[in-house]
Amino acid sequence: MSVEVPQSHLDLLERPLFAHLATVRPDGSPQTQVMWFRWSGDRVQMTHTKTRQKYRNFQKEPRLALSIADPDNPYRFLEIRGVVERIDDDDAQASFYQGLQERYGKSYPIPDAAVRVILNIRPEKFVAHG
Amino acid sequence: MSVEVPQSHLDLLERPLFAHLATVRPDGSPQTQVMWFRWSGDRVQMTHTKTRQKYRNFQKEPRLALSIADPDNPYRFLEIRGVVERIDDDDAQASFYQGLQERYGKSYPIPDAAVRVILNIRPEKFVAHG
Repeated sequence: MSVEVPQSHLDLLERPLFAHLATVRPDGSPQTQVMWFRWSGDRVQMTHTKTRQKYRNFQKEPRLALSIADPDNPYRFLEIRGVVERIDDDDAQASFYQGLQERYGKSYPIPDAAVRVILNIRPEKFVAHG
Repeated sequence: MSVEVPQSHLDLLERPLFAHLATVRPDGSPQTQVMWFRWSGDRVQMTHTKTRQKYRNFQKEPRLALSIADPDNPYRFLEIRGVVERIDDDDAQASFYQGLQERYGKSYPIPDAAVRVILNIRPEKFVAHG
């Protein structure tokens, strides 16, 4: 399926905003979390660890949804439905995670670098609101 | 299951903030939306119409999840897992919806009052972050 980012809402992907991520648990019920993300130009990328529930959720059900609202106007938001296409290990320094910290104006040690992964999410549908 | 609202995050339910709601589509994939809500003291209440996709989602899978972030500190958020316990018709004036408008500082006509419903969501788990 080919999808295009609505140009009217592209800024919501480019700004260091907070994505509300919905995944499906093994019992079929949904779960949400507020997450950092990065937009590569065609993928939403997030970091996670191999040891957490949400990571296990992806194994069973790679489809997910996320929404990003404009903090200056919460009636304006972008809804994305997508799929975890690939999970890569972050490197020994957790460089991807460090890049995210920089994007969000933070800097702190990453003691779990050894289990840090990069989620590559392929959007399958964008819905622009507001 | 008995659950208690974390007192540290009760304000996020009481303030007129925006909930990111996750539901599960009939094909098992998640869907998100940004929604108004009201906290009754033991239920999260939202309005919807009988004619929309998300309403149909609830019929098949009444379990949902939502997250509410503090706009003054997005690292502070409340995650709720719950279930649609009951769906009531709003009245002919859509009084519930009008009350929500007032809570959110809005006032406009409700042409779809005839199909407006009140979702009563029973929380089954709260997770306080930040």
